[in-house]
Amino acid sequence: MAKILRGAEALEAKCAELKDKVRRLRNEGTDPVLGIIRVGDNPDNMAYERGLVKRAEELGIQVESYVLEEKATETTVIALIRRLNYDDMVHGVLLMRPLPDHMDDNKVRMTLDPAKDLDGITDVSIAGVFAGTDRGFPPCTPSGCIELLEHYGIRISGKKAVIIGRSMVTGRPLSMMLMRKNATVTLCHSHTSPEDLIKYCNNADLIFVMVGQPKTIRIEHVRPGQVVVDIGINVDKNGKLCGDVDFDNILPVVKAVTPVPGGVGAMTSVMLLEHLITAAVRSRKGLS
Amino acid sequence: MAKILRGAEALEAKCAELKDKVRRLRNEGTDPVLGIIRVGDNPDNMAYERGLVKRAEELGIQVESYVLEEKATETTVIALIRRLNYDDMVHGVLLMRPLPDHMDDNKVRMTLDPAKDLDGITDVSIAGVFAGTDRGFPPCTPSGCIELLEHYGIRISGKKAVIIGRSMVTGRPLSMMLMRKNATVTLCHSHTSPEDLIKYCNNADLIFVMVGQPKTIRIEHVRPGQVVVDIGINVDKNGKLCGDVDFDNILPVVKAVTPVPGGVGAMTSVMLLEHLITAAVRSRKGLS
Repeated sequence: MAKILRGAEALEAKCAELKDKVRRLRNEGTDPVLGIIRVGDNPDNMAYERGLVKRAEELGIQVESYVLEEKATETTVIALIRRLNYDDMVHGVLLMRPLPDHMDDNKVRMTLDPAKDLDGITDVSIAGVFAGTDRGFPPCTPSGCIELLEHYGIRISGKKAVIIGRSMVTGRPLSMMLMRKNATVTLCHSHTSPEDLIKYCNNADLIFVMVGQPKTIRIEHVRPGQVVVDIGINVDKNGKLCGDVDFDNILPVVKAVTPVPGGVGAMTSVMLLEHLITAAVRSRKGLS
Repeated sequence: MAKILRGAEALEAKCAELKDKVRRLRNEGTDPVLGIIRVGDNPDNMAYERGLVKRAEELGIQVESYVLEEKATETTVIALIRRLNYDDMVHGVLLMRPLPDHMDDNKVRMTLDPAKDLDGITDVSIAGVFAGTDRGFPPCTPSGCIELLEHYGIRISGKKAVIIGRSMVTGRPLSMMLMRKNATVTLCHSHTSPEDLIKYCNNADLIFVMVGQPKTIRIEHVRPGQVVVDIGINVDKNGKLCGDVDFDNILPVVKAVTPVPGGVGAMTSVMLLEHLITAAVRSRKGLS
């Protein structure tokens, strides 16, 4: 029976580490402050924000939330970002997306100072992930996946990894981040045939899936010894939250698997807070 | 016996196309001008420059070459780049690299206006390749590989590709460019075991290799039906130029293979000139 890789366990360890870092920063005279910008009342964004604020409080991080109306202008959002860029008291900014349709996402995100770009949305961060340098920040979801594996002592270097899903938020940056850790990565997507997908998955040591389709990874995709990371979030026909993996059926076969809920999802917000603490440390050292 | 994919043939077609584009630009009142910045007398850079100038002349493109002494300061190079950024008569700039050791490559390359970044060295271009948008330009070597395949009518979409070598100049951008064309890509490198490499290669439809090691791809890596693109440049023990592929031995097996010399290498400079023409067209349209 597979080991279930629970986010809560990795989370607890990470939070203890971050609390300690915040304590040290405060002792040195720096109070880490997170700025959140939300435009409109997207329920997913509001839920993410609530969780983030709660977690930040636990860790001793202050949050400044800026909520703009859905009909706010692009100019207003850009002006707010510029103000936070120049505000030395705010160490990092989370710009909730998607933005309303009347805004040019590209123009808005590029306004953000890469040094405060906690979720890796600027070109500097994107190029940093691609080039494998530490400029800006990587997006939080792939950071969380790697953190979870490392917490459980799962080796990445020299392993064969398959990623299913090529989004800019997860699949693509994850491919570069795993490669930087010396995995050999295959990036599969909607144009990969079902037969090829089975072949690639069977050959892999690590499988990451994020396509938003329940039971994308089934018994025929897996073999003993594999680690399966489920990054999908779906609601099944009974109204229950589930991932992209046929969890119950692969559980007896593989070596380890992350559950949904309770797997990598829990890691995202804490990774954002880790990036904030890194930004605060860098600004203290004049590195940002 | 495999078809030999010769650069010269693809080059001829591309040059005819570009000549025509230059003619139209001139008729509209725009004279495309390429700026080249070279610091020091690196023989490889000088050879590349000579080839480029010759090709540009054939196409009716003017070249302004700026040659600085090896001991020039970083400030001098940056000032020159800034000048060319603001010069509306120069549509694109090739900054020859590597720069001398006393310069901060990162600082210098980031000075270049992404609209004139013909070889994809700025963060905007890098992020553009990663995100699959057309901001900035992709690097010329992977552009040339794709151009060569397309010239010979070799389909990329839905195919399985293996890339061996993860450089920022070729392997990594090529992986994203092939994925954008809907190939399923595996990126192999020095931490991929020899046995896994054989497996990945045997499974692939398209093999791209650029590790700088003769006979990296041998008879055991290939099977009938495959297309092999050799991006390596080496000198063999007899002092002869060769690529990374055991050309003579795989020739009877695969469907098609690019030779070295005479394969993709010839495409690089013409891709740079195509990027220049695109930059000139964009600047005319006020898109840059």
